[in-house]
Amino acid sequence: MSTKKTVGILGASGYTGAELVRLLLRHPKVEIVLLTGDRRAGLPIGDVFPQFAPYDLPRLVSIDEVDWAKAALDLVFCALPHATTQKVLKDLVAKAPGTKVVDLSADFRLEDPAAYAKWYGHEHHALELQNEAVYGLVEVYRREIKKARLVANPGCYTTCAQLPLIPLLKARAIEPDEIVVDAKSGVTGAGRSLKEEMLFTEVSEGFHAYGVGHHRHMSELDQEFSKAAGKEVIVSFTPHLVPMNRGLLSTIYVRGRRGKTAQDLHEILSKVYEKEPFVHVLPFGKTPQTRHVRGSNMTHIGVVSDRIAGRAIVVSVLDNMTKGASGQAVQNMNVMLGFAEGTGIDQPAMFP
Amino acid sequence: MSTKKTVGILGASGYTGAELVRLLLRHPKVEIVLLTGDRRAGLPIGDVFPQFAPYDLPRLVSIDEVDWAKAALDLVFCALPHATTQKVLKDLVAKAPGTKVVDLSADFRLEDPAAYAKWYGHEHHALELQNEAVYGLVEVYRREIKKARLVANPGCYTTCAQLPLIPLLKARAIEPDEIVVDAKSGVTGAGRSLKEEMLFTEVSEGFHAYGVGHHRHMSELDQEFSKAAGKEVIVSFTPHLVPMNRGLLSTIYVRGRRGKTAQDLHEILSKVYEKEPFVHVLPFGKTPQTRHVRGSNMTHIGVVSDRIAGRAIVVSVLDNMTKGASGQAVQNMNVMLGFAEGTGIDQPAMFP
Amino acid sequence: MSTKKTVGILGASGYTGAELVRLLLRHPKVEIVLLTGDRRAGLPIGDVFPQFAPYDLPRLVSIDEVDWAKAALDLVFCALPHATTQKVLKDLVAKAPGTKVVDLSADFRLEDPAAYAKWYGHEHHALELQNEAVYGLVEVYRREIKKARLVANPGCYTTCAQLPLIPLLKARAIEPDEIVVDAKSGVTGAGRSLKEEMLFTEVSEGFHAYGVGHHRHMSELDQEFSKAAGKEVIVSFTPHLVPMNRGLLSTIYVRGRRGKTAQDLHEILSKVYEKEPFVHVLPFGKTPQTRHVRGSNMTHIGVVSDRIAGRAIVVSVLDNMTKGASGQAVQNMNVMLGFAEGTGIDQPAMFP
Amino acid sequence: MSTKKTVGILGASGYTGAELVRLLLRHPKVEIVLLTGDRRAGLPIGDVFPQFAPYDLPRLVSIDEVDWAKAALDLVFCALPHATTQKVLKDLVAKAPGTKVVDLSADFRLEDPAAYAKWYGHEHHALELQNEAVYGLVEVYRREIKKARLVANPGCYTTCAQLPLIPLLKARAIEPDEIVVDAKSGVTGAGRSLKEEMLFTEVSEGFHAYGVGHHRHMSELDQEFSKAAGKEVIVSFTPHLVPMNRGLLSTIYVRGRRGKTAQDLHEILSKVYEKEPFVHVLPFGKTPQTRHVRGSNMTHIGVVSDRIAGRAIVVSVLDNMTKGASGQAVQNMNVMLGFAEGTGIDQPAMFP
Repeated sequence: MSTKKTVGILGASGYTGAELVRLLLRHPKVEIVLLTGDRRAGLPIGDVFPQFAPYDLPRLVSIDEVDWAKAALDLVFCALPHATTQKVLKDLVAKAPGTKVVDLSADFRLEDPAAYAKWYGHEHHALELQNEAVYGLVEVYRREIKKARLVANPGCYTTCAQLPLIPLLKARAIEPDEIVVDAKSGVTGAGRSLKEEMLFTEVSEGFHAYGVGHHRHMSELDQEFSKAAGKEVIVSFTPHLVPMNRGLLSTIYVRGRRGKTAQDLHEILSKVYEKEPFVHVLPFGKTPQTRHVRGSNMTHIGVVSDRIAGRAIVVSVLDNMTKGASGQAVQNMNVMLGFAEGTGIDQPAMFP
Repeated sequence: MSTKKTVGILGASGYTGAELVRLLLRHPKVEIVLLTGDRRAGLPIGDVFPQFAPYDLPRLVSIDEVDWAKAALDLVFCALPHATTQKVLKDLVAKAPGTKVVDLSADFRLEDPAAYAKWYGHEHHALELQNEAVYGLVEVYRREIKKARLVANPGCYTTCAQLPLIPLLKARAIEPDEIVVDAKSGVTGAGRSLKEEMLFTEVSEGFHAYGVGHHRHMSELDQEFSKAAGKEVIVSFTPHLVPMNRGLLSTIYVRGRRGKTAQDLHEILSKVYEKEPFVHVLPFGKTPQTRHVRGSNMTHIGVVSDRIAGRAIVVSVLDNMTKGASGQAVQNMNVMLGFAEGTGIDQPAMFP
Repeated sequence: MSTKKTVGILGASGYTGAELVRLLLRHPKVEIVLLTGDRRAGLPIGDVFPQFAPYDLPRLVSIDEVDWAKAALDLVFCALPHATTQKVLKDLVAKAPGTKVVDLSADFRLEDPAAYAKWYGHEHHALELQNEAVYGLVEVYRREIKKARLVANPGCYTTCAQLPLIPLLKARAIEPDEIVVDAKSGVTGAGRSLKEEMLFTEVSEGFHAYGVGHHRHMSELDQEFSKAAGKEVIVSFTPHLVPMNRGLLSTIYVRGRRGKTAQDLHEILSKVYEKEPFVHVLPFGKTPQTRHVRGSNMTHIGVVSDRIAGRAIVVSVLDNMTKGASGQAVQNMNVMLGFAEGTGIDQPAMFP
Repeated sequence: MSTKKTVGILGASGYTGAELVRLLLRHPKVEIVLLTGDRRAGLPIGDVFPQFAPYDLPRLVSIDEVDWAKAALDLVFCALPHATTQKVLKDLVAKAPGTKVVDLSADFRLEDPAAYAKWYGHEHHALELQNEAVYGLVEVYRREIKKARLVANPGCYTTCAQLPLIPLLKARAIEPDEIVVDAKSGVTGAGRSLKEEMLFTEVSEGFHAYGVGHHRHMSELDQEFSKAAGKEVIVSFTPHLVPMNRGLLSTIYVRGRRGKTAQDLHEILSKVYEKEPFVHVLPFGKTPQTRHVRGSNMTHIGVVSDRIAGRAIVVSVLDNMTKGASGQAVQNMNVMLGFAEGTGIDQPAMFP
């Protein structure tokens, strides 16, 4: 036990917090020594998530009670709400500069303070931290993440769209001005907060789009797609809510550039991801299903020809709780702490 | 009773058949006098659909037992599988020329025999009937339907895409070559036939696209969109399966033409559908949900500006079993038999 | 229109309120002239339940705004929370003594003030009204309901258990001390209020019992079963939550008395309910499913022999929103206002 | 790798087969070297279960192709349909007597050939094997399983009822003649075979009992309960189908014997299971939910006082695919091959 690294989870009473506990409980290289949950402070985690009652885990404490210097954690996962995050991490880093951080909020994902202010409606409160933050899409920024102290874990929608699109944009293989990303997510993406529209009775047996024309994840897409393409890229993006717990699927409509066919696009993706442990490109013409990645850290990608000449349809799926949030956070931790990248997150998906 | 019109339902042991029974049981102007169901012939309909056990309805018979001339029905709903339909209706019309027909299969929807042969893999077997068939999208072809003997009830995907797009194409308000229709359907759209991929365990808690790049409903879209636009129109269309029973939603990405904005498109649709009983256009900027049309014959349409200048997102919903199949079939019957159009199908939706 | 009776719905922004609107919108004998919804006062009902946006309905008002004397409604449906109800109805009846009331809360169901105080933790605040209230299980109290001014609409669990058990207890056909009622309900039974345990993510893909050993509906069961049996009867009752919107099923374990077999029990129920429009007894040995009564006012009951000699299993189902709440309320109204009992609520179930 | 034990899975194209693959893929002590699937022989397992496409696994072969002697497997999991199993295992054991077997079918669970013939309608075809088979409820028969060559893995319903009831019957703490087991299962319990009643459209948004009064799992309950009680015990048992994939809950109604209260029963269970890794007894008065054991090998048990004096309600849950089938099978393997009992199956549950 003495050789295990110590980790803490801030916001352990939410769903991404629970998913982190699930993945870390059997991770052979780390030990969970801190769980915070402000509204439930003092309770055993098993009272908040009964699936953990049989296990030996620390009680929930309030963040204010934590003495960061004394705790001297190796790494902290921060699954707090937007804005709170900036304040907490500023404090943490000041008091325990040796503690690494994987932040699951959106607070450190945007490099440009102006973009942040525009999408979030206020100035960023921890700009110096923002400066050192690394965007945590491992397949793209692995080298930077290895050396980072603070990693901004990407959003679920953005991970699902970026994994197929970034290599195609980098290869200049598709028209950057004609991309449509039609995305569909399970309900866990909305977290555990109380909203009428998230009641079972309001969600089940129905389907709808939301945030049409304006969704904060767009800013992340813009940033990464523009970097990949070497020019400003703005995609058409519409999220929808599927009556299921986990899973996210993006149907992406693209036009090949300079004669590139759907098969060419497929070949590019197949090559780029050939050796990636968590991205699986299906045979050409096949499309993936969210159920086949449920609970796993995998992304599956399929490419199909559209019947309109020159156009292709790319479909990508992941589990929004795992590769779309907590699984990717553990993947980032593995890279940051020097473990084998798949440690603790290489379980196959659970279907049915 | 004697003044009621007599109707029959061919294929009453399937889901669209059951939906017809549900709607017609309380229709004040007609009486169900014939129910066929070949594999279940001889059984009371209540054995096949227990919700009908308490009601007085004819037993299921085999189609071969029916003497069409003697039955002399006023109208027949045909909910048989593709191909069987052509044979049965040819025979029916020959023996009972006074019986009107609403056909819910795809067999008489395509005007062009070559298109039919291409999409269905064989020659059409009842071309003379095809010639007189009227495409049953009431909001577009009401006048023709009034006089028709044979109406081809449109498909669910096509109804949901055509109602918003046809007026926009007719008004030359959108670019016809840049339309993307991303469609999502509940599972009843697949009918009651036994397929592994339709088991509860294979469908629930997951989401996927199917028929990507090639789906037979495309031929119907091509036909009607091209007529509306006055030139060949081919849209990008991808259907998806949602883990719910009823409901269909289309997210439609368009670019305005000649400076037309999203608000202009909204205005066009609002005017066209102002007096239509079964199409409701939401206020500009709002988008509809399938749950709010469940079990009703309504279509709800919303229009939103995309953040990309010049582009708009149109979202339309209907219940694939009602306006997408049996409700629209009754609407067609009402027009053909001279009843008030909403008779028997004006119930509000059931939510939650 | 002038000949229609005028009705109001108090608490129209909840689910039972919405179900009343659904059923009454097409009821040929009444017109909805008042809708209250305190937190949403001022809004069109279509903003709160978009399925009603296309229809002509009054705006939501606050109860305090209503002048009961001036409104002089023929009947009011009260779908308010427990306790508020007593206050509001006391006021209403004082100011508009000619207005009849169907109350959907539990406030007037218990005849014994001591029982009320015990289960609800405080004195009853409208005892004189309680005295005149009639328990609204139409199949049992039809005669009393005809003359009532105030009808206490039964709970969903109680209706589902009472319809099969009251006739058996009255006939002294089962042991009153060995009854187990294992009940399972859809989620709409919990209403639209915000509770973490009612989020989609907490309910879907799981099953659990709740209120084990203590549930307020028990008091209603005790009262009616004891009256039917002519002695005190206390049953073992456990409710469970099913991940579905609508439907309630009771599995009832009984022991026949004085040699009565399961078939005898079936015969008793079949005779009692032979002419009831809303209770359907299945052939002996068959059991019902909730989906076949969805959206309808029907109760289906099945009786099966247990393999243990002398014991039987009775299964009953209804839609908790319809026969378990708003449908039964309309049935009560029909009886109170002298309409044919099935008016407006005789639609068959919607399946699938 | 060379030190790993070799295992095979017969019937790997079914759901229990897939669950075995999921659990064994990351089991550190064994290697999957054989997968059979007669109808899909020749295909990669990834074609049948796409979640396994990224992993290195043997292709599906037909059982007839297997040379058991040459394969010389350490252990085989048999997930074949009833009856086929007897034939296959007879052959296997004859040719490879050193290969151990965990059989997931019902074929070797009944010790009494007469009981088998009665419940399954024909003579047992491998009586000599039946004689050596050990009933694989680890918590009860751990010692026997350690030495067994053939273990009959218990059914899901029976595991869920036996874990709480066997200790209570052994302790003579409850009346053996008044037990009611009301059980509710997710849909995966029905397997992957094509049946109309298992279509998504037939299962979702509804609830029903099935096999009322006669279900084959009863024979297993009778056998084990009678052994535990030392006298013939026949319980009242009714299974129901819940619209969810995984999870099984039993609500068990019992009467204490010789003054035993609910709290006494709770104490008995708490003691018996204090050190069991896969049985968790909740604090007195709390009841478990299926979602909190999803995907894990845990059983959670709660005990509550009924309001009827002397009676108690016991609620137990497990995941029918894991502790109710494949997880328990791996637990049996671990015992048989001398591994730590929790190896490969100690992952916490996945919720939400």
